[in-house]
Amino acid sequence: MTLRDLPTPCAVVDADRLEANLDAMARIASASGKRLRPHLKTHKCIEIARMQALRGARGVTVAKLGEAEVFANAGFDDIFVANLIVGSDKLERLAHLVASADVTVGLDSEAVLEGMKRAAAAAPRTIGVYIEVDTGHHRTGVRALSQAGLLAYQCRSVPGLEVRGVYTHEGHVYKAAAYRLQELCQSVASSMRDYAEVCGTDTISVGSTPSASVMAAVPSVTEIRPGNYVFYDATQVRLGASADACALTVMATVIATPTPSDAFVDAGSKALSGDKDPDGKHGYVRDLPDVTMDWCSEEHGHLDLSHSPGALRVGDRVRIVPAHACTCVNCHDVLHAANGDTVVETWPVAARGRLT
Amino acid sequence: MTLRDLPTPCAVVDADRLEANLDAMARIASASGKRLRPHLKTHKCIEIARMQALRGARGVTVAKLGEAEVFANAGFDDIFVANLIVGSDKLERLAHLVASADVTVGLDSEAVLEGMKRAAAAAPRTIGVYIEVDTGHHRTGVRALSQAGLLAYQCRSVPGLEVRGVYTHEGHVYKAAAYRLQELCQSVASSMRDYAEVCGTDTISVGSTPSASVMAAVPSVTEIRPGNYVFYDATQVRLGASADACALTVMATVIATPTPSDAFVDAGSKALSGDKDPDGKHGYVRDLPDVTMDWCSEEHGHLDLSHSPGALRVGDRVRIVPAHACTCVNCHDVLHAANGDTVVETWPVAARGRLT
Repeated sequence: MTLRDLPTPCAVVDADRLEANLDAMARIASASGKRLRPHLKTHKCIEIARMQALRGARGVTVAKLGEAEVFANAGFDDIFVANLIVGSDKLERLAHLVASADVTVGLDSEAVLEGMKRAAAAAPRTIGVYIEVDTGHHRTGVRALSQAGLLAYQCRSVPGLEVRGVYTHEGHVYKAAAYRLQELCQSVASSMRDYAEVCGTDTISVGSTPSASVMAAVPSVTEIRPGNYVFYDATQVRLGASADACALTVMATVIATPTPSDAFVDAGSKALSGDKDPDGKHGYVRDLPDVTMDWCSEEHGHLDLSHSPGALRVGDRVRIVPAHACTCVNCHDVLHAANGDTVVETWPVAARGRLT
Repeated sequence: MTLRDLPTPCAVVDADRLEANLDAMARIASASGKRLRPHLKTHKCIEIARMQALRGARGVTVAKLGEAEVFANAGFDDIFVANLIVGSDKLERLAHLVASADVTVGLDSEAVLEGMKRAAAAAPRTIGVYIEVDTGHHRTGVRALSQAGLLAYQCRSVPGLEVRGVYTHEGHVYKAAAYRLQELCQSVASSMRDYAEVCGTDTISVGSTPSASVMAAVPSVTEIRPGNYVFYDATQVRLGASADACALTVMATVIATPTPSDAFVDAGSKALSGDKDPDGKHGYVRDLPDVTMDWCSEEHGHLDLSHSPGALRVGDRVRIVPAHACTCVNCHDVLHAANGDTVVETWPVAARGRLT
């Protein structure tokens, strides 16, 4: 089967680019002696997670219990759920999950800890805990050393819970200029050292693709959790990644060219997600990088041909590098892996839609 | 089962509000003698489409062949695919589809017509065609009377194709101020009359929820295709719809309250979609309408509590009216229908992810 045989829109992964990306990050982790615990939210595929494990990844990261359940069922046995587990139904599922996999979860408040106590009491084995630290992204995570120290202390007194480290998602690096990345990562790492000390742990886990190689070089960091690096995307290219590293595209068909400078494709926010890159675009055409998708509706994407007037005709197929690979993948039930134009495998997006 | 038993995040439909919305639009169509051909992209559920049919809807509208296949398999037999069908694989599917349902598709260019000729030759019965007109939304659709007239003429000479009307999606009404809605609809309808005339048809089909009641009152319009009215959403409320009409919410759990004016819930863009309302919000809390989701990541939603400090605690459940019901529904595999707190039915989102 070739790409021409696939109905559009569909998600296509360049197998060689994917493997090169996996190899490169594995080398970064290995060269610096860091643990690579990749975040699977980007691809949500059992097959790609196995490729990561074969290249030395130790353990995995997921965002939701439902994703953890998918990967535990597939045999992954060291799973970090980088989130706060709240609600008696979820705590029951967590207690059940640890029967089949070693699980670590996030913790950032006494309210969350109260629930965790019940899960620990019901669980057949120890539940790992990473104290979540807000290092500047201002989402969840403790925001004061005293709070972290107290939580770690309280957590240690709960039978069945084990404080295993501190973690952060330094998502604010996405908004930092490239020349400030080094400085910002040093600041995050320095802060994490203080948090690790008050929590009485040596394990410092950080996670984002733009910061991964910088963070891997910081001596105190012990674990990196990049996700997006498997595919990269238009946002990562905007932040400095190589366009040649982009392994995921949405293949689409041109359905209308109302003027020489406008084309519409059969892929909109339902195939690419509504996310935009830092320039406000939904992505760009891989072989015509000055052709961007500047707006879209659910099923229609508008390609701005003003820099390449007349470059596309009705019926042409284009491959669009999405603004955000993670949310793009979640739009699809399968990913088609290709070598050149040959479709070599089709991978179910096994953890798609695992919202809970 | 009650709402409390559902894991979060999940999509909840108030059954009574849904029925009231269906009744109201059925009355508008019936009172004006217009054909109501609802767009199913909003709910994608066979059960709700049947409720619409029972209230007098005649035929349905969908956005993709894949959606048409789902509803044809469920017994719907008068389906308008409000899109341009391009590519030999899709034309084959179209030819196959008309064996089980009466199907009409859009047409706006000679390039699209060339493909349609092949589908018509292969199809076991006539394929209906609506000429698509751009009335100001500037997406697809013919942009000149002469182009429409020529297309209709060419289409009539193709055995197996039948010109059945003209249609538009007047999506630009979403950006018009409320006081201009009447004027804008009159302008669209007047333009459509001209296009119908050059195409030699009396059937004028228009479609959008904000314009539906105004368009129904225009004598020349024969068919309305609203979609969003089944649920409404924060965008429609911003455009003038009643907040009490909003029938769809995403139920979420508070997982962190780092400050009295900030809360995070376990629902982000994967549960609500990345779409924003005209105020740039992802939605608001139904029982605390001054609490909006001002930003989110994939799994985290930030609720701005600055107008209700301390109003939420970890573990609280909230019901969020999404910015855009259509894209929100597409994030979910099922919708839970509730009467008050009692879950009465769970409907599969049968056409979710039918991208092609």
